[in-house]
Amino acid sequence: MAIISKAQIKTIRSLQMKKFRDEMGLFVAEGDKCISELIHAFEPVCLINFFAPEIDASLCYQADEQQVSQMSSLRTPQGSIGVFKMPKNRSIDSWVFNELVLCLDDVQDPGNLGTIIRTADWFGVRHIVCSSLTADCYNSKVVQATMGALSRVQVYYGDLPTWLAQQTCPIYGTLLEGKNMYHTLPAQRDGKAILLMGNEGNGISQAIRPMITHPIRIPSYPQGSDTSESLNVAIATAVVLSELRRPIKN
Amino acid sequence: MAIISKAQIKTIRSLQMKKFRDEMGLFVAEGDKCISELIHAFEPVCLINFFAPEIDASLCYQADEQQVSQMSSLRTPQGSIGVFKMPKNRSIDSWVFNELVLCLDDVQDPGNLGTIIRTADWFGVRHIVCSSLTADCYNSKVVQATMGALSRVQVYYGDLPTWLAQQTCPIYGTLLEGKNMYHTLPAQRDGKAILLMGNEGNGISQAIRPMITHPIRIPSYPQGSDTSESLNVAIATAVVLSELRRPIKN
Repeated sequence: MAIISKAQIKTIRSLQMKKFRDEMGLFVAEGDKCISELIHAFEPVCLINFFAPEIDASLCYQADEQQVSQMSSLRTPQGSIGVFKMPKNRSIDSWVFNELVLCLDDVQDPGNLGTIIRTADWFGVRHIVCSSLTADCYNSKVVQATMGALSRVQVYYGDLPTWLAQQTCPIYGTLLEGKNMYHTLPAQRDGKAILLMGNEGNGISQAIRPMITHPIRIPSYPQGSDTSESLNVAIATAVVLSELRRPIKN
Repeated sequence: MAIISKAQIKTIRSLQMKKFRDEMGLFVAEGDKCISELIHAFEPVCLINFFAPEIDASLCYQADEQQVSQMSSLRTPQGSIGVFKMPKNRSIDSWVFNELVLCLDDVQDPGNLGTIIRTADWFGVRHIVCSSLTADCYNSKVVQATMGALSRVQVYYGDLPTWLAQQTCPIYGTLLEGKNMYHTLPAQRDGKAILLMGNEGNGISQAIRPMITHPIRIPSYPQGSDTSESLNVAIATAVVLSELRRPIKN
């Protein structure tokens, strides 16, 4: 098996920057578990210290610990690295859907985005539509935080206000003045609907708020108590998704 | 107002390490918002670039941008820094409680612990009991992720197996083979109970599992689908807390 070259190390390292990911159409995942999940959804172009019977051996390279740490974006590199082709830009312009879709309005922290993708996967959300200022889902921190869920959840980027304005299904969105979600959300929601979540600091942007057909709020406990001002956006997304997917109202 | 000294900068910087936090009994918080919440719960010993009318001026210091970044543990320092006294070790040996308590068995990621403390605060959980291998709640990453909730939530450390063995209330814990939580958890649970959450990679440890009186599981959607293997521990904690605090079963 070939040993990784200096030039390849430099290229893979450069994929930590969005500019180079977009130019080359490639992204990086680390660790056997993550790589073995992504391999089912994305075309691998280079696999380092990763072995699987179904993989074309010409894609496989060896690297020592120091070389891996040169390429890795993790504090504790996991030993194996995979480079994958990014899918072609998925346009939302004429996209038709018939299920629950998650929309993210400028979620900026890569860890939050990764956790949201992982959580969406758990709750059976197959499509996430992101505003153009939302973190890049091929950022290595996002990829790692998804724990492989990126192989099952499609992430789109586009002009959110324009796209939302064309939708006619229920649009749920968390707002301070929204209705108590426990009293409002339908159980077993698996028909066409949109759940809209906002930026870490500012919530859902002013331009988009009027498009929310069902403003909701996660009440603190006990209600009206002197508590934190807000929940982390990934936490809030999970709590609303759990309520929307609740199998029964008993 | 005094200018911060080199010796003080060095001391404050050293508080990024648990060893020095424990030796001096001090911890650090950054940013006006976080400091102004913690000031109500912890005794400040030094406040840098932070001003409030109720603060003894002799505790206040000025520092320029470079000095702040020398002390800061953040990539983007927020300008102000507060140094607070850690409360005395809270022993759980003879502690009596009468409400819902969260127990963490070796949650190791500081970001997860901070988010869990913030979420616990939201859902009215006032006490968290941690195993001794759980991340330190005075770690600066934890403090920042709590967004001030550390001022309202008490965190205890101790020998979890010994303590749990003495409890007679319901102990809920997430296990792969647990019962569907939507069918199992009582609504408006505000009586005495324990919710036990486990380590990021290994879940709840073998030694503690037999003490769970109510093993529960968050089902994926649709049930039995090919999805992520697990949820992030902070996400799972939030989803279970939301279900426990649900005001109604309708």
